[in-house]
Amino acid sequence: MEFAPVSPPDAGAAAAARARQDALTKPRGALGRLEDLSVWVASCQGRCPPKQFERARVVVFAGDHGVARAGVSAYPPEVTAQMVANIDGGGAAINVLAGVAGATVRLADLAVDAEAASARIGAHKVRRGSGDIRTTDALSDGETIAALAAGRAIADEEVDAGADLLIAGDMGIGNSTAAAVLVAALTNAEPVAAVGLGTGIDDAGWARKTAAVRDALFRARAVLPDPVGLLRCCGGADLAAMAGFCAQAAVRRTPLLLDGVAVTAAALVAERLAPGARQWWQAGHRSTEPAHELALAALELDPILDLSMRLGEGTGAAVALPVLRAAVAALCSMATFEEAGVAGAAGPATPPPP
Amino acid sequence: MEFAPVSPPDAGAAAAARARQDALTKPRGALGRLEDLSVWVASCQGRCPPKQFERARVVVFAGDHGVARAGVSAYPPEVTAQMVANIDGGGAAINVLAGVAGATVRLADLAVDAEAASARIGAHKVRRGSGDIRTTDALSDGETIAALAAGRAIADEEVDAGADLLIAGDMGIGNSTAAAVLVAALTNAEPVAAVGLGTGIDDAGWARKTAAVRDALFRARAVLPDPVGLLRCCGGADLAAMAGFCAQAAVRRTPLLLDGVAVTAAALVAERLAPGARQWWQAGHRSTEPAHELALAALELDPILDLSMRLGEGTGAAVALPVLRAAVAALCSMATFEEAGVAGAAGPATPPPP
Repeated sequence: MEFAPVSPPDAGAAAAARARQDALTKPRGALGRLEDLSVWVASCQGRCPPKQFERARVVVFAGDHGVARAGVSAYPPEVTAQMVANIDGGGAAINVLAGVAGATVRLADLAVDAEAASARIGAHKVRRGSGDIRTTDALSDGETIAALAAGRAIADEEVDAGADLLIAGDMGIGNSTAAAVLVAALTNAEPVAAVGLGTGIDDAGWARKTAAVRDALFRARAVLPDPVGLLRCCGGADLAAMAGFCAQAAVRRTPLLLDGVAVTAAALVAERLAPGARQWWQAGHRSTEPAHELALAALELDPILDLSMRLGEGTGAAVALPVLRAAVAALCSMATFEEAGVAGAAGPATPPPP
Repeated sequence: MEFAPVSPPDAGAAAAARARQDALTKPRGALGRLEDLSVWVASCQGRCPPKQFERARVVVFAGDHGVARAGVSAYPPEVTAQMVANIDGGGAAINVLAGVAGATVRLADLAVDAEAASARIGAHKVRRGSGDIRTTDALSDGETIAALAAGRAIADEEVDAGADLLIAGDMGIGNSTAAAVLVAALTNAEPVAAVGLGTGIDDAGWARKTAAVRDALFRARAVLPDPVGLLRCCGGADLAAMAGFCAQAAVRRTPLLLDGVAVTAAALVAERLAPGARQWWQAGHRSTEPAHELALAALELDPILDLSMRLGEGTGAAVALPVLRAAVAALCSMATFEEAGVAGAAGPATPPPP
């Protein structure tokens, strides 16, 4: 399984965007992070000013995890299929939050432990439930490749359909356990430093989750540093597909917003599969999961929002999308000092006070 | 100058909103800050679910400051009037950022050192430029009362016209110097702990600004703890009007988003004028100005965004508005567990793992 080389965003467009920011009617740098984000969008689009996003697309990757049987979640495994139906019906948080942000939602069932909700949703399904990573591989070799290829194909489908911004989201009881294993393995972190409360487990649940991560991490040692082997050993079909999706978005020169711990763990693997891919990503938010923070630090991504969200589905990225839109709008539509007839800064030669 | 008593937001609506959040198809608390914001909006509106904002309104309070002659800004004082014209023409950052957030912009010239740009903009004008607070009062007694009353009247006008969310913004070369004095006086902070780089001054400018704050703060001691006296001595007509506006928004039970250091300094005074007003406010963002952080801490407000913005005009609050909209949308439109047929959390009686 190989990805085409990732080319960097356009440095010329970035320079033009930075120069334009400095000519707009505001003190230089006064829009802070918005200026950086606008420069990033311009560089991804290869044009300055950039155009506003017209087809922002969220893809929610759903899958069950055998490790959920270990009591690592506050919710029973059947909630994954129920929530897939809820997202399909438009009632989940991601439907509402994508809607107010001007994005549409696609569902991809990679490994839900149930019949696919529809042919479209199940078009890339790999298996019913990934293996219990405490004791067995999550996937076979063939399934791992199939899941990576599914994510790559979904990215291609969306970009070919005109998507100008991608958001990856997740849905799967137990997926934050597998994500914590991936992150701990790739950042050399202890299980206790990587495991969080997920959907809201109690102390006993946290202890079970940490034990599960420790067991899976022990198995992971044999496959490190191979990213594909890691997905096979300790990931899952949903996580592998997210990794393929994030990598291929970069290959296709399409900006992407990461969401929570599951997506960011997959992205950490994707950066190994397609080096440089992270240049095409921004972190939508910082969740309350410790492994999320570890993954963001390893990717050197500074999250746009920090709202103590921990829901997944792409929700944190969806809430960040209007900030990215604001950044683009400011760069595109503000007047320059020259246009507005406003005097610029006096510069370092400011006369002393009278 | 007195304000009517501030009544608290509706506790019943808050409780109903919290209960509804707990019934929505997500782990309890998983939307983090969004849940708190939605509960706050419900309590301000006195209804659950709340309704989405239909008439969000930004009011930019413009004024010049005599202290600008002390070389405390990177920009010459005439930029205030030029930027008022730019905002009036739709080319400033606040025009663009309010536009993408679905808010409209009103300009109020309280003390720009020029003829008012229009009768509407100058309807509440108090004087041309506030006094140099290093050596003289910013305003006379009568002007202070007039400026406070202007802010109160503008809030009344906007609420009567149907505004369901208010944003206060500022425009005025030198206003962050006066704001730093107000904050330092009310939080007992040293000038060096309150003074920031404003529009982007150099080290020598920072030293001049800090000296100006020290001089004004010395004068402020005589009037503390009187908030009206403080505005007269060390504020300005724009800052006094913002204080009146923030206080009256609370009196009129209308939620308000604070912006940067100038607005938040005025809000700190407003909380003294109308105790409890802060319950009707959220902090849109944390800017890079140290006095902003001091004022937010004193008001016990946790900013929604932290994007290193330092522009003023209401821009930080405008970028935060879509987050508030997302919070309202989630509470209003997500399916409940019962509606979606999704199983709830197992709760503390989670069975031990097999």
